[in-house]
Amino acid sequence: MIGGPIYDRVALIGLGHIASSMFWAMKRRGLVGHVSGYARSDETRETARRIGLCDTVCDSLEDAVTGADLIVLAVPVGAMGPVAEAIAPYLKSGATVTDVGSVKKDVIAKVAPHIPDNVHFIPGHPMAGTEHSGPESGFATLFDNRWCLLVPLEGSDPEALEQLRRFWEGLGAHVDEMDADHHDLVLAVVSHTPHLIAYTMVGVADDLRRVTENEVIKYSATGFRDFTRIAASDPTMWRDVFLTNKEATLEILGRFTEELFALQRAIRKGDGAHLHDYFTRTRAIRRGIIEAGQDTEAPDFGRVKVER
Amino acid sequence: MIGGPIYDRVALIGLGHIASSMFWAMKRRGLVGHVSGYARSDETRETARRIGLCDTVCDSLEDAVTGADLIVLAVPVGAMGPVAEAIAPYLKSGATVTDVGSVKKDVIAKVAPHIPDNVHFIPGHPMAGTEHSGPESGFATLFDNRWCLLVPLEGSDPEALEQLRRFWEGLGAHVDEMDADHHDLVLAVVSHTPHLIAYTMVGVADDLRRVTENEVIKYSATGFRDFTRIAASDPTMWRDVFLTNKEATLEILGRFTEELFALQRAIRKGDGAHLHDYFTRTRAIRRGIIEAGQDTEAPDFGRVKVER
Ligand SMILES: NC(=O)c1ccc[n+]([C@@H]2O[C@H](COP(=O)([O-])OP(=O)(O)OC[C@H]3O[C@@H](n4cnc5c(N)ncnc54)[C@H](OP(=O)(O)O)[C@@H]3O)[C@@H](O)[C@H]2O)c1
Ligand SMILES: NC(=O)c1ccc[n+]([C@@H]2O[C@H](COP(=O)([O-])OP(=O)(O)OC[C@H]3O[C@@H](n4cnc5c(N)ncnc54)[C@H](OP(=O)(O)O)[C@@H]3O)[C@@H](O)[C@H]2O)c1
Repeated sequence: MIGGPIYDRVALIGLGHIASSMFWAMKRRGLVGHVSGYARSDETRETARRIGLCDTVCDSLEDAVTGADLIVLAVPVGAMGPVAEAIAPYLKSGATVTDVGSVKKDVIAKVAPHIPDNVHFIPGHPMAGTEHSGPESGFATLFDNRWCLLVPLEGSDPEALEQLRRFWEGLGAHVDEMDADHHDLVLAVVSHTPHLIAYTMVGVADDLRRVTENEVIKYSATGFRDFTRIAASDPTMWRDVFLTNKEATLEILGRFTEELFALQRAIRKGDGAHLHDYFTRTRAIRRGIIEAGQDTEAPDFGRVKVER
Repeated sequence: MIGGPIYDRVALIGLGHIASSMFWAMKRRGLVGHVSGYARSDETRETARRIGLCDTVCDSLEDAVTGADLIVLAVPVGAMGPVAEAIAPYLKSGATVTDVGSVKKDVIAKVAPHIPDNVHFIPGHPMAGTEHSGPESGFATLFDNRWCLLVPLEGSDPEALEQLRRFWEGLGAHVDEMDADHHDLVLAVVSHTPHLIAYTMVGVADDLRRVTENEVIKYSATGFRDFTRIAASDPTMWRDVFLTNKEATLEILGRFTEELFALQRAIRKGDGAHLHDYFTRTRAIRRGIIEAGQDTEAPDFGRVKVER
């Protein structure tokens, strides 16, 4: 690393999908000096020790955060407040606390009050992840070419912010800044509502008596299986997202239902022109996503082996 | 091919995604003798000639179907009836007509009346496809390990049915039989409703003023981009699907809306237990799909390069 590590000592609180990916990405580039980690359960801490996740796995929050320059809260959104409260007494003066939670307004409301005046709090959220969870699901390349949103608070220290930005860039991400309100609305559109809809569709299929689960599974390559990937994500993480980003999710769900009803009416009335127009308009966004390097152009996400 | 080709002469009507995949899959195994093809536009016929799609590309339906033992209708569902009417006078006695349309009741109603008594009509539907369309999008492996549904009519000739079954198995597929009503309901669940929902979600994102298209694109890896793949499918094909599988699609959409409202209410009321239970239940189906070899277990459909 040119100019030495970005942080000397980093503490990861929570050792799941995001924290473990951060660890491997830090090690790949020698981004930091020492990484300590803490997870709630004995099981996760043991797994972490076995696979070499973190330089030191600690059995208490106190041990993990003591002396750390950067503390990353990587637990479900609903656990952020209690964890912040529990670590507050052990935070080093001048340290930075950040988080990776999928919701920002609620996390700020729950965490900020516990952060001492001599510690920086800069919320964050990497726009990356897979449907897998837990300490063994992380990998170093998760953040490559993805975006990380930083959500500085009023009066955030510019140097601490700049350091955190360089850290995320070192992990492979591009960094943007945004305020918490806008973050939560954007995420309701690109992530939270799509997840709720996918869960719903899979739930409907699971619940029908007239179509068997076996049929759903066998014929899923016609579209359904894409929804099951998203709907296989961690239930606790997603429960917390919907409980804490209630307002924006309900707003976007309202818009979604409106549009769905309009299409439903077009189907009922046999309005082919309306359907064709709608289905044509939505193609442009896909092209944009591929051109921006945010998805593959290969058919079926490259799942199929294409051969002539 | 042990025992020689399954059909001597095959005619492909429509030279798009499905027909071109069938052609390359037939050639891979020497499944048939000669393949003739017809497409509506000069442009598609020229492309087909350029890339060697079909042994003979014909400029008229008459030339394409004359002498054929198997005629495959591979055009949008709404075009099946007119095409069947146009080819009827040229069909050879004892030939089999099949189709690959995504809807079965409507296709049967529109096609069957045109088929002469001395010709077999056995509807079919391969449960495979990607978001791409047109003559250049096909590939030989599309049907490998996927299912093809055959929908024999009352009094279908058992030998003709058996021959068509062997043909699809030769293309790489497993074959099931089903009646048209049940087919259309199953497809409404696994394919048609998921597509409508994906189109709707992408439409909502496209339409919002407060979240820019650029934001949607940059942050799409958080879930949204999966929906854009499905919503990039051919507008004409999907318009026809919804116009012709109206009843079953509206039924499943009704169920979907009910469930979505229940989840929406749980979010509004802060009922975390309801959300957590729902999100847990939907994971089992994903496991079933992976175990059945219908999707990859790799995170993110294998789009990401996983590295430690
Ligand atoms: N997964 C994604 O796609 C994604 C993307 C961006 C942001 N995020 C955000 O990242 C955060 C972590 O998600 P993840 O995917 O890494 O989750 P994960 O793989 O399920 O890991 C969660 C970690 O948090 C710990 N934990 C759970 N509940 C806790 C509690 N009440 N108190 C203390 N620790 C607790 C768990 O400990 P045990 O293992 O001991 O139970 C585990 O180590 C969440 O806020 C999520 O919103 C996730
Ligand atoms: N794509 C899938 O995922 C999938 C999966 C299973 C079943 N299917 C079904 O397979 C059939 C074909 O779909 P595809 O994906 O192969 O479509 P495609 O790639 O868009 O090709 C459609 C073909 O039909 C021709 N065509 C279109 N309208 C016509 C008309 N009015 N009269 C005569 N020919 C016409 C087109 O000719 P030009 O090129 O000259 O316009 C083109 O050759 C549809 O019934 C669809 O429901 C599709």
